[in-house]
Amino acid sequence: MNTQVSLSELTKRFHQVLPQDAVLADKEQLLPYECDALTAYRQIPRVALLPGSAEQVRAAVEVCRELKLPIVARGAGTSLSGGALPHPDGVLLNFARLNKILEIDPQNRTATVEPGVRNLAISEAAKPFGLYYAPDPSSQIACTIGGNIAENSGGVHCLKYGLTVHNVLALKVLTIDGDILELGGKHLESPGYDLLALMNGSEGMLGVVLEATVKLLPRPDGSKVLLAAFNRIQDAGNAVAAIISSGIIPAGLEMMDQFTIEATEQYCSPGYPADAAAILICELDGYEEELADQIKRVSALLEQYQATEVHLAADEQEAETLWKGRKAAFPAMGNLSPDYYCMDGTIPRKHLAEVLEEIYALSEKFGLRVANVFHAGDGNLHPLILYDANQEGELERAEEFGSEILQLCVRKGGAITGEHGVGVEKLDQMCVQFNSVELQTFNGIKSAFDEHGLLNPGKAIPTLHRCAEFGAMHVHQGKLPHANLPRF
Amino acid sequence: MNTQVSLSELTKRFHQVLPQDAVLADKEQLLPYECDALTAYRQIPRVALLPGSAEQVRAAVEVCRELKLPIVARGAGTSLSGGALPHPDGVLLNFARLNKILEIDPQNRTATVEPGVRNLAISEAAKPFGLYYAPDPSSQIACTIGGNIAENSGGVHCLKYGLTVHNVLALKVLTIDGDILELGGKHLESPGYDLLALMNGSEGMLGVVLEATVKLLPRPDGSKVLLAAFNRIQDAGNAVAAIISSGIIPAGLEMMDQFTIEATEQYCSPGYPADAAAILICELDGYEEELADQIKRVSALLEQYQATEVHLAADEQEAETLWKGRKAAFPAMGNLSPDYYCMDGTIPRKHLAEVLEEIYALSEKFGLRVANVFHAGDGNLHPLILYDANQEGELERAEEFGSEILQLCVRKGGAITGEHGVGVEKLDQMCVQFNSVELQTFNGIKSAFDEHGLLNPGKAIPTLHRCAEFGAMHVHQGKLPHANLPRF
Repeated sequence: MNTQVSLSELTKRFHQVLPQDAVLADKEQLLPYECDALTAYRQIPRVALLPGSAEQVRAAVEVCRELKLPIVARGAGTSLSGGALPHPDGVLLNFARLNKILEIDPQNRTATVEPGVRNLAISEAAKPFGLYYAPDPSSQIACTIGGNIAENSGGVHCLKYGLTVHNVLALKVLTIDGDILELGGKHLESPGYDLLALMNGSEGMLGVVLEATVKLLPRPDGSKVLLAAFNRIQDAGNAVAAIISSGIIPAGLEMMDQFTIEATEQYCSPGYPADAAAILICELDGYEEELADQIKRVSALLEQYQATEVHLAADEQEAETLWKGRKAAFPAMGNLSPDYYCMDGTIPRKHLAEVLEEIYALSEKFGLRVANVFHAGDGNLHPLILYDANQEGELERAEEFGSEILQLCVRKGGAITGEHGVGVEKLDQMCVQFNSVELQTFNGIKSAFDEHGLLNPGKAIPTLHRCAEFGAMHVHQGKLPHANLPRF
Repeated sequence: MNTQVSLSELTKRFHQVLPQDAVLADKEQLLPYECDALTAYRQIPRVALLPGSAEQVRAAVEVCRELKLPIVARGAGTSLSGGALPHPDGVLLNFARLNKILEIDPQNRTATVEPGVRNLAISEAAKPFGLYYAPDPSSQIACTIGGNIAENSGGVHCLKYGLTVHNVLALKVLTIDGDILELGGKHLESPGYDLLALMNGSEGMLGVVLEATVKLLPRPDGSKVLLAAFNRIQDAGNAVAAIISSGIIPAGLEMMDQFTIEATEQYCSPGYPADAAAILICELDGYEEELADQIKRVSALLEQYQATEVHLAADEQEAETLWKGRKAAFPAMGNLSPDYYCMDGTIPRKHLAEVLEEIYALSEKFGLRVANVFHAGDGNLHPLILYDANQEGELERAEEFGSEILQLCVRKGGAITGEHGVGVEKLDQMCVQFNSVELQTFNGIKSAFDEHGLLNPGKAIPTLHRCAEFGAMHVHQGKLPHANLPRF
């Protein structure tokens, strides 16, 4: 990478291709970009750019390629894994001005948008046609579709309606070489290798998204919310596995443990049963009679698994209150502890109960409180580790605790991320998830798109050297330990 | 590639790692493998192998790698694009003996199977748990999951339940270097680039699938079949677009034109209205009351678009008869013409009516009859071009006609394949679908997995040289013609 070029030369070059106000190089101008939502990592870029059109993006990328400047693309900066952390020698490419909805096509049920369009803005634009965009990360008011694609974002409803990759139909991608790849379309299936799927979750390392066509869904006919309380968290975990294996696919199925319940009650009083060891919030959607039948079947299962209380929200307003508590769980934790560290791992659903028990045991071991509030139906855990960064050594202990949770997920046949991506946060855990051959394959793919490693360097895929330093331990699909190769 | 090794040396090497009866080298033994379901292409391999375990597959691939022998993997040989056509210098790897269902896991709703397991066998094994495997290519009695993954197969119900890629959760893949990639899992999402999606539809060119874990779905509560007749094919096309944009997602939505209706009536008398210009068969599934409501809404739309008759199958038996005609359409054509060529292309649904009109115009131009029977809900066309190979020039005319249909699909923003893959059949059309940068990206990915090009060489991705020979014409996303680069 080239750090030889002076800042004044840099800004001069960018001013030649971008409007005056689209090139930011002063420290105060750059400060807002020093971190994303993973605030433990901070870094100022050399320059931040605010292109206003696809042509301007291409011109800016061309300058970066020529000067060998690392490029970090940024939507709203809501990444929880540091995916949009700037590079100290590089350029931050901000997509705030590429925020046009280009088309709503109700006949094909698609929306075509620029990458800086907010997730929720798509649903708002589709509303007049009775349609919406399904993936709903909790940051959906702010986060952009470009960032969603980079991280393959999920949300409360991805249990039924899929992750971003399942809802993106086409992409126009700018390569580091300045070429355009048109991937997918409004039609079914694409010939050749599935580059469209490859782009989703690639954390800005393979190309720059200039345009996305996403699937729109009709609004469900109706929806209902059930609340169930349990005296033992194991019962709640087993109830989740039972609901899913019964064939019912809830629109959302969330779990909160005692600590989280107490914290949210203090914070916004959603009316959760205060003495429960765990609660489940289950949203069902569909046609009226089907809904009624599903409520009956889910209620029976909840009771079978020892729910002490099963309550159906009487109306939309009560349903909203129940969801409000769930959505306030993270800020509620902020009230109880100066700092918390939000983990994101997945496990096969049937291991929920035992994994939660092990997380509580780890909490004892590390002497740090942990709150569990998560997408139970997906097996997507979000343990919140509470710590105080002002207490010497607590941050390190929290990170070690988090690392052990993710390794536990891998040992149970799960993965080190559910919906937050790898970013800078989980590079070490990637060494746990994948062996050297798999990591080399990732690097081979990276090379096919970005030979010189200019796109978001240092994120998502660790070097083999880093993994060697992290230690030889390799857990894979529940088998630990074993030699890296061969794997029969 | 190495063709220096004598046949006796070859068989000797394979006999060292495989049982006696797993190595076939006599001409009579090899003849059954000379083609797949695209019988216009025939080729005898040097050797066919029938490994009985993953270990044997790995040992066989090791010999191939060492001797630089091309490898073509084959399931049931039902590919319609020549994906399993043997290589004259290479080895045909038959997966018939890797046919074990390893696990049905009702709690996680998954099945884990060997690659030679038949598509329908998975649903049969899952039946006791009330579950099934959704993708249902018309060859589902015979075709294997390994082949389904290679071609990213669809079927009548993929409109609602997705293609193979949407239903495969995990793969164990053997690389050409003899390493194992474990991709995906029973959990949500995977970190790193989406190699799992990349494997689906890669036509055996990136690795050899040793094991697959697929999603199982609960059987729908009920289903109903509607038949609608139209005096004008345009009306049928517009009705399809209207149904989809109304928010209803039928389990299947198929169209047949007049010629196909007549042919199937002659063949098996399913009771279709003989004088209709087109019929639609629409399967709806779901909960009883939802079904009733959907039937009402779909019927109203069909009538609004000038259906001359809308008939609801009275019972399961009548529904089956209606489907039987659809499924017999291909053999019915065989009765009317010595040869036919089945095309496979997709278009955005809203262009259905106009594309069909253009296909009929092409039929006039080439002087060849065409029958249209296809997955209308997906916009996945299957024009059947009727010709007589014994008439000088007819095959060539049929191929040219087919090529023009696929180019028409691309011009309308569609793709040259819906569910049959590219294989050897559509290499030229890939030059129409993709520009040189996109093709180079494909080749870069291929190199990351299979540097020496031993896995299924000559399939799916054309060389740039071939595209240059095919002609400079490049149609992309409906824009024709334009310079290859840049594409703003």
